[in-house]
Amino acid sequence: MKKLINSVDEFVRESLEGFERAHGDLVKVNYDPVVVYRADAPRQGKVALVSGGGSGHEPMHGGFVGRGMLDAACPGEVFTSPTPDQMEWATRTVDGGAGVLHIVKNYSGDVMNFDMAADLAKEAGIQVTAVVVDDDVAVKDSLYTQGRRGVGGTVLLEKLAGAKAEEGADLAAVTDLARGVVANVRSMGVALTSCTVPAAGQPTFELGEDEVEIGIGIHGEPGRERIPMEAADQLTDRLTRPVIDDLGLTQGERVLVFVNSMGGTPLAELYVVYRRVTQLLDQAGVQVTRSLVGPYITSLEMQGASVTILRLDEETTRLWDAPVHTPALRWGT
Amino acid sequence: MKKLINSVDEFVRESLEGFERAHGDLVKVNYDPVVVYRADAPRQGKVALVSGGGSGHEPMHGGFVGRGMLDAACPGEVFTSPTPDQMEWATRTVDGGAGVLHIVKNYSGDVMNFDMAADLAKEAGIQVTAVVVDDDVAVKDSLYTQGRRGVGGTVLLEKLAGAKAEEGADLAAVTDLARGVVANVRSMGVALTSCTVPAAGQPTFELGEDEVEIGIGIHGEPGRERIPMEAADQLTDRLTRPVIDDLGLTQGERVLVFVNSMGGTPLAELYVVYRRVTQLLDQAGVQVTRSLVGPYITSLEMQGASVTILRLDEETTRLWDAPVHTPALRWGT
Repeated sequence: MKKLINSVDEFVRESLEGFERAHGDLVKVNYDPVVVYRADAPRQGKVALVSGGGSGHEPMHGGFVGRGMLDAACPGEVFTSPTPDQMEWATRTVDGGAGVLHIVKNYSGDVMNFDMAADLAKEAGIQVTAVVVDDDVAVKDSLYTQGRRGVGGTVLLEKLAGAKAEEGADLAAVTDLARGVVANVRSMGVALTSCTVPAAGQPTFELGEDEVEIGIGIHGEPGRERIPMEAADQLTDRLTRPVIDDLGLTQGERVLVFVNSMGGTPLAELYVVYRRVTQLLDQAGVQVTRSLVGPYITSLEMQGASVTILRLDEETTRLWDAPVHTPALRWGT
Repeated sequence: MKKLINSVDEFVRESLEGFERAHGDLVKVNYDPVVVYRADAPRQGKVALVSGGGSGHEPMHGGFVGRGMLDAACPGEVFTSPTPDQMEWATRTVDGGAGVLHIVKNYSGDVMNFDMAADLAKEAGIQVTAVVVDDDVAVKDSLYTQGRRGVGGTVLLEKLAGAKAEEGADLAAVTDLARGVVANVRSMGVALTSCTVPAAGQPTFELGEDEVEIGIGIHGEPGRERIPMEAADQLTDRLTRPVIDDLGLTQGERVLVFVNSMGGTPLAELYVVYRRVTQLLDQAGVQVTRSLVGPYITSLEMQGASVTILRLDEETTRLWDAPVHTPALRWGT
């Protein structure tokens, strides 16, 4: 295992120290419990957004803390759920009196711990709602999850709900918006290689020299099938068609296409995938009016990509375009 | 070789097609000769900036085309210099009557071809100046280069000179600014793995399971030495100390620190490196007032990182903060 780390135990903390040094104008890091939060928190009267999950998916979620997106993120150890005390601390710290929305990816540990944190925060008098993201069409009921897993749709939801909260919407309206996003976003990914969790010291799974895993999870958990390597267009079809079908997209609709790197795949390859996704949507008469291409929800150094499609309406288009200023996503400011 | 491509021959073209589909509001792509250029080119009265180089380093350079940065970029095949006809076409297309600055990384092919293109453009009555970036302190006179190689400093120079041109400075002033940046920026990188050029089909070089290459070039060309893997802090010291020394940084000076991924290294590891770079600068009494962390000048899927330090003054700080709107770098708009 060759990684730019000093020790397995200190990896997450040291990475956060560097993150805070680079982005101290936007975020602060609390180290006990570990929480990344907006430097200007709490924002009085604004609904606050808290997310979190295992580390190893950077820039998600800490990179999305800032104006127009998250108020706080709780990083667990690599591929490990954060604890309820992190989430409770975050919730208390960023609440500005208008309540807090928990954005939870659908993994059993995350769901359970956010649930406990919400109970604790409610006991302290804070209004809390939650939305569970389960956009991965690849599999139901896998190693880490009951139901579908939460993947790339989470990034888009955090942007859109963040913009809604920034506009001054109340907790019910921000929660409704977030639930609407969950209903209209789907994803699927492919792995070309495994990744190595530092604490394990060896690859999470073995994949042959000429083999890929279709429907991979962001922790390297199994997908739909292993198949021999194919051309990018064929692989992209295998990811995109189930997403289009599951969304029930029809002619004339508008979408945002998000092509994400699992961490180790070069940007130039992502654009080859993006090209094919948009060709398929052209054929279906669906208009691609917004896009995002790059590494936003990763699995350490895993090679591969995921395709996320979000059905857009007038409101979500406006919220996507709204200003955002975070370490990893920024425009309009 | 597992890559998200359809064919070796069509890789660059198809990637650019996807790029244009994703960023058609900002850039256009001409396919014969291959040039990425601002959708609103030429900008009358503005000095135009043209760069270029082999593909495989994305987002550089095409991702830096847009307001406040480049007017055009000429992508060659993977790790192969673009041709003079690409550069000449780009120069003619983006010239708005105020002249064109060529930003050239110091590789023999790039330098020779930009030279020929400049001669052709001058014959056509266009004012052309050039700046050659040679910020890599690792080695002199290597496989692709006479003198030092041009690496991460190029990204910073393109931002700063782009801002200067956007302000309305004339060709002499933009060229002077660019030369000042070259004099004040230094870099060095480390590779943990090789990368595979599609046309070659196998890794550019072999690196042992527990070995790293200090001073690697962005085409996988040899660096200073191969050593056994070390902790991130030790490796970072090996990159940063020569950079600080070569720049002659002294107490009280201000710098921008740029920690770059070679392509396959996760963001979380880059922040571990960034943490250590800033610790070393703290010790030297040097103030880190700006930063950039992420994959901006890559070598396909190579794992590793590079450290670039730029000495800042009032003008370059202001130019760094100026609005930029490109596919890969955006703020203030």
